[in-house]
Amino acid sequence: MTKEEIKELINSAETAELGFIDSIGMPQIRRVFCTCHKGIGNHLISTNTSSMHVQEILKNDKACLYFADSNKFQCVCLIGQAIFHQESFYRELLWHEGDEIYYPKGVTDEDYCVIEFIAQKGRTYASLGTSDITQEMLENWDGGADWIGPA
Amino acid sequence: MTKEEIKELINSAETAELGFIDSIGMPQIRRVFCTCHKGIGNHLISTNTSSMHVQEILKNDKACLYFADSNKFQCVCLIGQAIFHQESFYRELLWHEGDEIYYPKGVTDEDYCVIEFIAQKGRTYASLGTSDITQEMLENWDGGADWIGPA
Repeated sequence: MTKEEIKELINSAETAELGFIDSIGMPQIRRVFCTCHKGIGNHLISTNTSSMHVQEILKNDKACLYFADSNKFQCVCLIGQAIFHQESFYRELLWHEGDEIYYPKGVTDEDYCVIEFIAQKGRTYASLGTSDITQEMLENWDGGADWIGPA
Repeated sequence: MTKEEIKELINSAETAELGFIDSIGMPQIRRVFCTCHKGIGNHLISTNTSSMHVQEILKNDKACLYFADSNKFQCVCLIGQAIFHQESFYRELLWHEGDEIYYPKGVTDEDYCVIEFIAQKGRTYASLGTSDITQEMLENWDGGADWIGPA
């Protein structure tokens, strides 16, 4: 997959699968809303502080983020680190009108947090074959990029 | 989610996400075809022996299998073990006419293998909330079940 194809896949996805390792060392997956991106390697996910995946990520930040388009047979698996944020910058960037349904106290609700995913490498899967995304490629591609989204 | 809802979600899925841990200890995800099930806890996946996820699973069998229906807001994450098979029983059970495209030497092609996923526990996610699937529940639910599928 070309850089443009990867970007298009990520930017058109509404959700992604977050992979992490739980406290007994088992892999786990959660589907998450992921609509705020900085280049190809950096992504923001708004979620509940109390949720199991956030609690596990606080103990072990190794994570992967998987974007897939079944119709196009295109998938990207990014491997890296998941970072917990409750600073207003991140909270406000991802806050939507109506999010009070999930976080009754609003944008400062202690149960509202943002997970930042930072890729170190990745791999793409398409009908024409697989290919690696290296850290060097990510640095070249993402230099100067800023947060885009959510729509 | 009730047992019947979990069964319906799994049986109607064409693909699932397989989570595993690679040789440097990072979580990874692959979308796999998963249409052969024994009860709720046992699933078969046909895939390429040479693929990275099979090679990693041979070194570390800890895995998870994630089924999701975005329209119904229902997800099931099963946690357990991934076992590599090349016995004819499994190869023949999952072989489809036309699979020669992927495995030119046919059902005995050394690059054709079957991954059996055996759940030890799990967790369900739905709009009404989350709930645990325990090993005891799996044993009660799946007693006497046989392989069903692929369609």
